[in-house]
Amino acid sequence: MILVACLNPALDITHEVAAVDWAGINRPAAVHDRPGGKGLNVARTLHALGADVLVTGLVGGTTGTGVAVALSEYGVRTALTSVYGPTRRTFTVVDERGDVASFYEPGPAVGAAEFAGFLDDYREALADADAVVLSGSLPPGLPDSTYATLIEVASGLPVILDAHGEALRLGVTAGPAIVKPNLPELEALAGRSLAAGADVAAAADVAAAARGLRAAGAQAVVVTLGRDGMLAVTDEGCWRARPPAAVAGNATGAGDAVAAALAHGLVLGRSWDERLRHAAALGAATAAAPVAGEFRSGDYAGALAAVTVEKVALEEVG
Amino acid sequence: MILVACLNPALDITHEVAAVDWAGINRPAAVHDRPGGKGLNVARTLHALGADVLVTGLVGGTTGTGVAVALSEYGVRTALTSVYGPTRRTFTVVDERGDVASFYEPGPAVGAAEFAGFLDDYREALADADAVVLSGSLPPGLPDSTYATLIEVASGLPVILDAHGEALRLGVTAGPAIVKPNLPELEALAGRSLAAGADVAAAADVAAAARGLRAAGAQAVVVTLGRDGMLAVTDEGCWRARPPAAVAGNATGAGDAVAAALAHGLVLGRSWDERLRHAAALGAATAAAPVAGEFRSGDYAGALAAVTVEKVALEEVG
Repeated sequence: MILVACLNPALDITHEVAAVDWAGINRPAAVHDRPGGKGLNVARTLHALGADVLVTGLVGGTTGTGVAVALSEYGVRTALTSVYGPTRRTFTVVDERGDVASFYEPGPAVGAAEFAGFLDDYREALADADAVVLSGSLPPGLPDSTYATLIEVASGLPVILDAHGEALRLGVTAGPAIVKPNLPELEALAGRSLAAGADVAAAADVAAAARGLRAAGAQAVVVTLGRDGMLAVTDEGCWRARPPAAVAGNATGAGDAVAAALAHGLVLGRSWDERLRHAAALGAATAAAPVAGEFRSGDYAGALAAVTVEKVALEEVG
Repeated sequence: MILVACLNPALDITHEVAAVDWAGINRPAAVHDRPGGKGLNVARTLHALGADVLVTGLVGGTTGTGVAVALSEYGVRTALTSVYGPTRRTFTVVDERGDVASFYEPGPAVGAAEFAGFLDDYREALADADAVVLSGSLPPGLPDSTYATLIEVASGLPVILDAHGEALRLGVTAGPAIVKPNLPELEALAGRSLAAGADVAAAADVAAAARGLRAAGAQAVVVTLGRDGMLAVTDEGCWRARPPAAVAGNATGAGDAVAAALAHGLVLGRSWDERLRHAAALGAATAAAPVAGEFRSGDYAGALAAVTVEKVALEEVG
């Protein structure tokens, strides 16, 4: 079983409006509610892949109840911990002429006793876990060391960590199996800008920064580079995965699909090049789908055939 | 006890944002959730006045649960009927530079069996009621005759009806004690524009249209005229109430405060001029408060002293 911890899940509300009046009253043509937040996107993607997945995390208030109900409607198993503060909502208005405005609530203030209650539930769930995914923002009140703590508590189970800033930096020191920064997240940790693009010089620059995270504790680093695909630095070497040609769609959740595919490939025992092929293909299929965090199986199959993965000689990037 | 029926309640969500990016991601500085919809505003106002109030109505989904929880936190008694579809949300973004954008969901599609279940609960609640308030929109699926039906079922209990369009027109024929249209609602029923303003000619024009609603079945008609106050046509004559000077604030819910005050005055046995004095004062105090549907008791007391109510000779108004 893959255990996904969602400390700051969300209810994602989307209103589709024909022609928004930003200074008046609008009546949306369509309303969508979905469990959201990066961790829940990962869990839904793993479930869609047929993986055995269990979601732990913090939910509060009637929005938290709504998230739990929606997850069960998707068929995703949960072992959620209740907190007093209400689970956050994200509200997105899609103007059919093109504009998209989003409003992100901060999430509940989580107290130490509430986090201790979560740790009990997390420890219990770890007993049946083959891998752990830690993904997304931390709610107000939890320290930046929270992901590091959860990696230490997992004591040896492989952990895929997708975070940013201090939570990522401290999490890396606890020795996760894979960290998955995007380029801005990696730049923030490296403390410098990195060369973007598909050429060897850019790969060398990114690989050098990724090796810095390996030196700090991460066992493997997979950097997502948008249309330029992914670069992985592992103890078996360095790989470059290139996606098929980009198509129109919704890139929201593509990074979460990559995290899900990496976790899935890890528990299936896939080789690194196969993990990366699936991760790049699933990311591309998710970016191509109109609804954030979902993908069409045909797009996934097509992308799998079109992705290229090549090993990069260490001396080239070094 | 005053029974308030809320067939299409709402959860009103407000995000306060310092400087909205209507094409990007925003993180609101403050988030407010409140039970909303006109009926619930009336109920909250009656509760704040110290009246014994019971809310019936239709709630569904986790948003419906949220509305019920919030009402109980306000101390408002409820006897709500569950429906399958989710209770609607209204979402309002307040840009601190001045713009306000609102997004209104439509409400649940209510089936005949669900409405029959509500009627059972409504009949039970009527046993202890001294008056009934019917206020607000109908959810999708309920016929325009719904308020007429609820007035007939109340069989003689005084009903205050605050609706618009066909639901108001059909409701009037069932003989409510008081209907409370605003000027546009009265114009829609009269089928013509009416003179606006504070002068005698405007009063005569409005009173003639109000007498049309009396002829159609309403026992009394109170027309709210915004800054020009209110005009009432009853079986005891015609009154004009003028509010104190308008102040800055939030007019949302002022009409609901008027409906609450009229219901309260009715069950207290206040004379028409006192009912109107309180209604105009509470409407003004509610309009002066920054939060929709709330008022400060000091504003209410101050407005009570400043409102003028005068009887208008019938010959003057036509």
